[in-house]
Amino acid sequence: MRTGVWLIGARGSVAVTSMIGALAIRSGLTAPTGCVLESPALRDLVRPGIADLVFGGHDVTSVPLEKKAAELAGAGVVPAALATAVRQELTAVERHLRPLPAAATQAGTARAIGADLDGFRNANDLDHVVVINVSTTEPAPPPHPAHAALGPLRAALAEPGTVLPPSALAAYAALSAGCPYVDFTPSTGARLPALDELARERRLPYAGNDGKTGETLVKSVLAPMFAQRNLKVRTWSGINLLGGGDGANLTRPGANAAKTASKQRVLAETLGYAPQGETRIDYLEDLGDFKTAWDLVTFEGFLGTGMRMEFTWHGCDSALAAPLILDLARLTAAARRAGRHGPLPELAFFFKDPLGDVPHGLAEQWHTLHTFVTTLPAGTTP
Amino acid sequence: MRTGVWLIGARGSVAVTSMIGALAIRSGLTAPTGCVLESPALRDLVRPGIADLVFGGHDVTSVPLEKKAAELAGAGVVPAALATAVRQELTAVERHLRPLPAAATQAGTARAIGADLDGFRNANDLDHVVVINVSTTEPAPPPHPAHAALGPLRAALAEPGTVLPPSALAAYAALSAGCPYVDFTPSTGARLPALDELARERRLPYAGNDGKTGETLVKSVLAPMFAQRNLKVRTWSGINLLGGGDGANLTRPGANAAKTASKQRVLAETLGYAPQGETRIDYLEDLGDFKTAWDLVTFEGFLGTGMRMEFTWHGCDSALAAPLILDLARLTAAARRAGRHGPLPELAFFFKDPLGDVPHGLAEQWHTLHTFVTTLPAGTTP
Amino acid sequence: MRTGVWLIGARGSVAVTSMIGALAIRSGLTAPTGCVLESPALRDLVRPGIADLVFGGHDVTSVPLEKKAAELAGAGVVPAALATAVRQELTAVERHLRPLPAAATQAGTARAIGADLDGFRNANDLDHVVVINVSTTEPAPPPHPAHAALGPLRAALAEPGTVLPPSALAAYAALSAGCPYVDFTPSTGARLPALDELARERRLPYAGNDGKTGETLVKSVLAPMFAQRNLKVRTWSGINLLGGGDGANLTRPGANAAKTASKQRVLAETLGYAPQGETRIDYLEDLGDFKTAWDLVTFEGFLGTGMRMEFTWHGCDSALAAPLILDLARLTAAARRAGRHGPLPELAFFFKDPLGDVPHGLAEQWHTLHTFVTTLPAGTTP
Amino acid sequence: MRTGVWLIGARGSVAVTSMIGALAIRSGLTAPTGCVLESPALRDLVRPGIADLVFGGHDVTSVPLEKKAAELAGAGVVPAALATAVRQELTAVERHLRPLPAAATQAGTARAIGADLDGFRNANDLDHVVVINVSTTEPAPPPHPAHAALGPLRAALAEPGTVLPPSALAAYAALSAGCPYVDFTPSTGARLPALDELARERRLPYAGNDGKTGETLVKSVLAPMFAQRNLKVRTWSGINLLGGGDGANLTRPGANAAKTASKQRVLAETLGYAPQGETRIDYLEDLGDFKTAWDLVTFEGFLGTGMRMEFTWHGCDSALAAPLILDLARLTAAARRAGRHGPLPELAFFFKDPLGDVPHGLAEQWHTLHTFVTTLPAGTTP
Repeated sequence: MRTGVWLIGARGSVAVTSMIGALAIRSGLTAPTGCVLESPALRDLVRPGIADLVFGGHDVTSVPLEKKAAELAGAGVVPAALATAVRQELTAVERHLRPLPAAATQAGTARAIGADLDGFRNANDLDHVVVINVSTTEPAPPPHPAHAALGPLRAALAEPGTVLPPSALAAYAALSAGCPYVDFTPSTGARLPALDELARERRLPYAGNDGKTGETLVKSVLAPMFAQRNLKVRTWSGINLLGGGDGANLTRPGANAAKTASKQRVLAETLGYAPQGETRIDYLEDLGDFKTAWDLVTFEGFLGTGMRMEFTWHGCDSALAAPLILDLARLTAAARRAGRHGPLPELAFFFKDPLGDVPHGLAEQWHTLHTFVTTLPAGTTP
Repeated sequence: MRTGVWLIGARGSVAVTSMIGALAIRSGLTAPTGCVLESPALRDLVRPGIADLVFGGHDVTSVPLEKKAAELAGAGVVPAALATAVRQELTAVERHLRPLPAAATQAGTARAIGADLDGFRNANDLDHVVVINVSTTEPAPPPHPAHAALGPLRAALAEPGTVLPPSALAAYAALSAGCPYVDFTPSTGARLPALDELARERRLPYAGNDGKTGETLVKSVLAPMFAQRNLKVRTWSGINLLGGGDGANLTRPGANAAKTASKQRVLAETLGYAPQGETRIDYLEDLGDFKTAWDLVTFEGFLGTGMRMEFTWHGCDSALAAPLILDLARLTAAARRAGRHGPLPELAFFFKDPLGDVPHGLAEQWHTLHTFVTTLPAGTTP
Repeated sequence: MRTGVWLIGARGSVAVTSMIGALAIRSGLTAPTGCVLESPALRDLVRPGIADLVFGGHDVTSVPLEKKAAELAGAGVVPAALATAVRQELTAVERHLRPLPAAATQAGTARAIGADLDGFRNANDLDHVVVINVSTTEPAPPPHPAHAALGPLRAALAEPGTVLPPSALAAYAALSAGCPYVDFTPSTGARLPALDELARERRLPYAGNDGKTGETLVKSVLAPMFAQRNLKVRTWSGINLLGGGDGANLTRPGANAAKTASKQRVLAETLGYAPQGETRIDYLEDLGDFKTAWDLVTFEGFLGTGMRMEFTWHGCDSALAAPLILDLARLTAAARRAGRHGPLPELAFFFKDPLGDVPHGLAEQWHTLHTFVTTLPAGTTP
Repeated sequence: MRTGVWLIGARGSVAVTSMIGALAIRSGLTAPTGCVLESPALRDLVRPGIADLVFGGHDVTSVPLEKKAAELAGAGVVPAALATAVRQELTAVERHLRPLPAAATQAGTARAIGADLDGFRNANDLDHVVVINVSTTEPAPPPHPAHAALGPLRAALAEPGTVLPPSALAAYAALSAGCPYVDFTPSTGARLPALDELARERRLPYAGNDGKTGETLVKSVLAPMFAQRNLKVRTWSGINLLGGGDGANLTRPGANAAKTASKQRVLAETLGYAPQGETRIDYLEDLGDFKTAWDLVTFEGFLGTGMRMEFTWHGCDSALAAPLILDLARLTAAARRAGRHGPLPELAFFFKDPLGDVPHGLAEQWHTLHTFVTTLPAGTTP
């Protein structure tokens, strides 16, 4: 049941926090707070467990994991004592990290990625490897005719030039190498008809997109509340102030637009109409890995009486995302073992912009996840 | 299908707002915003409709409805134009209001209440009358051995002295007169073994307690969110600043304690543990019918990282409560027609302190309500 | 001592609110809340008084004052009873309003404006007329060589084409007609060397810019607090959500940029450095005349300990601005009578972007204003 | 110019944070952020400097300073690296700490305190010793006739029994031993006629009470803002959620009442009237040394329009208080050297409940402090 977790962006904050956490939980040094599959309602239902996960991954940077761990400890994202306690095991993970390959054609790059995945699986005697994208958000790619079907895509990739953005190329490489793919970012990932075709051909599941870690999580419970009480939401506006690498990246207009669109989608989907207002994202280097979001909701009650609600969310994105990475690795591996292929809409609970025509209210998503987990085959054989 | 709604506290803000609203909706002057049974998911499923409701009630004060309506318009609770538009019909309701009776024994008082209910039903040719308590909150009553069973209760009420607090006496009188009883306040109402026995003997349903209109409503969606994400809530503290009659009353220590206890109950029930912190209630005459609640939640994520959330809710209690009164009258009448008797735990969605061993998360309560509504008999015959 | 107040934008929310207020205060119907010159420390020191003010003005629209007053009452900006009570006097003001003139050259337009000002003064037997701009914010104008000196400006205005933006043309016309000029908007107004030269030539005072009514007011007391306590402000970010005519206008990029720059200026001026962060302005039609601003301040204390403060301001811009219009009319008229000419930096208390090299902390500005008021000549003769 | 700082409560969070900070600043390891006398406007004007301060003190507990420093580092109050860097010097301070003496009579206890002060001065060759109370808040003491004059006080102290609460006994002992006294807590301290008489007899200054570190600091700039704008504050309510030792102590009703009264005083003093509302203090162990305060202000503008403001302050009390301890030690020593005796109302800037009939607005207090500092004798001789 040893399962590989191959992280695209393996030296980033989310990746390293999830590694430190998994190692510390395995050693009994800390509790699995924030891991959905370890909540009382779902505990012990999904194999592999956290202790079965083996980490590897690609990154464009080469900052040592130990150095990154020290940075995270300095920033208050992980306790310094934990970072120190798992230092040795973290260094062992270092051996499984590779620089992101680049070949003359995108087909060549995909083959190189696949070779790294095969090497990781063989060297560690893994039943499965799940590929998860936790790298920074890409701008939306230009459309390309080869996105529409697998045959043309394969042909186009064999030529020089850029057909797929990096996240979609990673998805292509993962699926081609027999690995399920999860995209935790708002980037394209597996969301192209050609890649869906590939997943079905290879009988592999995929999941995404855009992990739901803060303000959107809150929206996904408040918006259904207004709907169920038949209160009319007139405006819903928000601002996200964030530092860290993701924040800096989001100042690039394309990436920002992708992110803010997926943040408002939950409102129209759960209310049945789109209230006035937008969600802004501003980068403030000084906030580090922490994020502050403020939302104002104005609404109308009986006889048109105007009322309002505000909330402030002050969270640490890496600490909110990292345990979900462990959950998603486990769930996707279990789904694969259960023979699921194509998109996994049952994992909508984890995403801002979920795959499929699914409910956007958190409670319904939870119910769907609960059903999914409790009906997975018990999973004693790989 | 004409259904009577007999309000205890019929000249108060909640009661008069619900009357104005029902009259205005019936005349097509305003939309039924805030009425749960008029939301897209539940519309047209429950009979009686809002247009079938006929209002009457008791009150200890004698302020004319028209005067109260003008006050509510001045305070921004109802639009002045609506209050004016329904003035004539409101004056017609005036004929159905009675001063709260008081006899030498509580049994005598109950008989006098029952006579008023009979008179209301006969004069208006009503199929059913539902009694709803919207009067100010009582302090918790001293225990009395006669609360435990119906026989001793009847005997004790026949003697001089106070056996039941006013809300429970109203419930006793209502049920004895063949009327379902709903308590929208945190007062005792029908929550005594002797009264449950009476309800079952008379084959009548009852519901309550303590309408969920603001801060607790928000808690009932946020607390499940933290639980489902396996985030550990360390503290949850709040303060409610409110004016109006209810606020003044809540400065009486007994009433305040009853209210704050029911406000924190949702946390322990949905989280599975009680975080540190309390909910305070302060009275500020100047806030009028509006209420501001502020809550601070501190929680722990992955690896113990501390995070926090705050929210402010600025609502108008009367405007939030009034449409629920219409919903509860309709639902309780429909339940009675469907042959339901005893407590109605399916209405937990409406209450801070619901009857029965029910879920406290709003989403589950909504699901229960939805099932209840869609499985009620279609209701063409009384 | 009868003093004319000629408002550019005389049919807008701020203008009409200030007219209604002045009329109602004069009739003893309401207290002068929000009028700085009526606070205990400054009361009875400045002539003219509110009762001495006579209103007139220009506007590009022709919506009747009475209709605008009804709109303001409907929006909760002025009490309906007050709007009704002063209806007759407001209709009398209507006679003094003129459409904004437009001639073949800007010199011609200025002469037409001046003729309207002369007509107003003569018809009402006024000692002075003060011109105050309360129209919507302009985009920053393109530079023009004639802005630098009065001679070239006069020559350029006589030619066809646009030399001055509307606010500066109004300032030119006012000063040329012997009237002091106040700009309550972030537009150019009198802030051009050529116009300063004109004011000194005509021995007239002028004041501005950009009335300080909400978030910036709060900043101007909080920023000095951090400075005086030697706490290091790391980030200061904010968002302003506003409806109304001004909000719609501010979505035009040029106007928005002008406004947000003047909002952050107070920080650098009072802290001595510019913290990270920006102020956003978003338009939400549904908020009407009300505005909600939220600011987050992160700061560093002893030994670098990180702390934070947030505030939300929910104000009605017209109700905050209108009393200041009365103050500024009185102060500028008094300054003129006292022989002051050129800019009036002593009025910095009222402005986001004050003229001159003045303190930006509110307390110092108050002290300056207090000294100015108490040292004005007693003012018994015109 | 070596000056002793004798802290009552020398092993508490505030005391140890101020020691660590002074040692780290002296060694150039950190900047004097939060030290008012190190702000650009006041820098280099007051002798002694931070480097001239020598620490000693009394405490009822015996937790080693090094252990306390580690706790503070763990709680995020001081950086772990700084705590480690000054460990050796902190251990040197340990030699100057003494258990709080207790003799058969309060006179005897005072003499023992005085002996400790003399010993500290002689052993360290100090020009002056300033005694500062940073221990936990006492309940208000019962009145005693001997509080009124020095003669009767001396007589009463010589008898068995409790005449003075601990803070006042410390003030008596300090003044009797020739040391100025500062009370940073809301306790009685030197605020008794008999102790004022003693200070004047011994020609010593004293200062206090109740350090202004958070919510009240903000109030002291916002309340003058409302007053200067002639906006009518209708309600001002707040809640303080705090952990730490001080929080636990404040759950004792007497101490809580003392604290909340001093928190609202600023409003009546700066507004000229007391708005509705109260300040609550709740203890939440989990918040540790951090405190969250929330305030709601509702106010009335022009023509009675209702508006509102909220703020949240999330601060670390020890980190806010500690630098002020260094300021107060330096200022009081300088005042003594300058021959000042009796109360020091010029230090009102630092206190919630300042001595004397002084302004409560922060800006005026700052102006007073600035004048005081710049008119102190240059101070080259002791």
